[in-house]
Amino acid sequence: MSLQFELMQHKNKIEVCFTPAVFPEFENPEAIVVIVDILRATSAICTAFMSGVERIIPVGTLEEAEAYKNKGYLVAAERDGIVRDFADFGNSPYNFTRERIEGKEIVYSTTNGTNCIMLARNHHKVLIGAYLNITEIAGYVISQQRDLLILCAGWKNKFNLEDTLFAGALSEMVLKNEAFYTICDSTLASVDLWNLAKTNLLKYIDKVAQRHRLKKNKLDDVIEYCHTFDLTKIIPVLKDNYLVRLNYPYNN
Amino acid sequence: MSLQFELMQHKNKIEVCFTPAVFPEFENPEAIVVIVDILRATSAICTAFMSGVERIIPVGTLEEAEAYKNKGYLVAAERDGIVRDFADFGNSPYNFTRERIEGKEIVYSTTNGTNCIMLARNHHKVLIGAYLNITEIAGYVISQQRDLLILCAGWKNKFNLEDTLFAGALSEMVLKNEAFYTICDSTLASVDLWNLAKTNLLKYIDKVAQRHRLKKNKLDDVIEYCHTFDLTKIIPVLKDNYLVRLNYPYNN
Repeated sequence: MSLQFELMQHKNKIEVCFTPAVFPEFENPEAIVVIVDILRATSAICTAFMSGVERIIPVGTLEEAEAYKNKGYLVAAERDGIVRDFADFGNSPYNFTRERIEGKEIVYSTTNGTNCIMLARNHHKVLIGAYLNITEIAGYVISQQRDLLILCAGWKNKFNLEDTLFAGALSEMVLKNEAFYTICDSTLASVDLWNLAKTNLLKYIDKVAQRHRLKKNKLDDVIEYCHTFDLTKIIPVLKDNYLVRLNYPYNN
Repeated sequence: MSLQFELMQHKNKIEVCFTPAVFPEFENPEAIVVIVDILRATSAICTAFMSGVERIIPVGTLEEAEAYKNKGYLVAAERDGIVRDFADFGNSPYNFTRERIEGKEIVYSTTNGTNCIMLARNHHKVLIGAYLNITEIAGYVISQQRDLLILCAGWKNKFNLEDTLFAGALSEMVLKNEAFYTICDSTLASVDLWNLAKTNLLKYIDKVAQRHRLKKNKLDDVIEYCHTFDLTKIIPVLKDNYLVRLNYPYNN
């Protein structure tokens, strides 16, 4: 059986983009894009919805975030893991407590994650992925029978391991459905790294650069939480310029 | 022992850049850069020197290559694995026979590899790396006690597996010297992928996208050759705008 014939049987392709810097090479407007910034933006966004936030306005620059603050919005903003002076809080998932944010609209800007969301806005759907909602994301993608493009936030346009491992975990889940295939080297590498790491994920994560950055700033208390599977069925999705909950049974 | 203290003991860092698109994030003028395009540019360049070529002029565009042809140069030029009409031959290592090129100067332009060479030209040294000369490259880098930056040509600004595996193999060799360290996630991933692949390298390579591309164009006869270790002690190096042999004991 030829490769060509095999691929025709599996109509939806999976690709992984390791950093926003090369996203133009991957653009595929018909695809569902899953944004990943495990430590910590996409884990925090999922947590905010778990705590009942109404919607989130992702903004790219600190200037925009500050302008929203001046208009009276609740603002989460950090750079390099450090909360900005004008902001109400930074991007630790632990900041997004029900008392603070339930039923509210918040503005959110981070070093790497929020830019990715806006970068992918012209695609069919832009979803926020984390271990916290991974099984739900995989199920949704399979239900939609569309190409999947996983965009890793990375670190300042460089590859990072923690987002890559998540990309591998999600790809592996979706590839179990026979309508999906990949011939993308970065997807293959992600799946292999995931299989190497998964039996002792926290030990593996121990060596990644971002862990050292968080530790230096005493922000590494969230690492275990950010690698916990399936705490929620909520999938945050970009609608116009806002992140909202994707309606089940997925009609928005 | 703190991480900071540990790193001070190992003064030379190793980084891997997966595609030329993100090279600006890695620039480090004091570093030795090793260019990698295993299938097939850097394997072919090593082979050309093994066959006694005097020097190679790497050019980025086909227009430049054709201009050299019109001036009477021997020209190797391809795009997407296909030899261009005006060229004398393409970038299969098998083209670079002693009969054709011994003692000559040739011009060389490929889809991904030659652009990388020029991109890194402002660094301390730019070396051409392949499995064919990997042990010699590792020995040279260790002898120089400088930072090592491995630049993978990738495929049209995307990550590829075959260059990454080589980056992992070379990093692992150099990291055995205690004066070298890495905290770079892409280096760590490369080393892990290399260790996964190395016991059956050709079987692992069987899944990579570039193999399918070469097979489609009936150019996959070189894959085994391009994954052969240590056929030569020659290290091609960029000197001004030319690739020449690095003089042993390394004084050029």
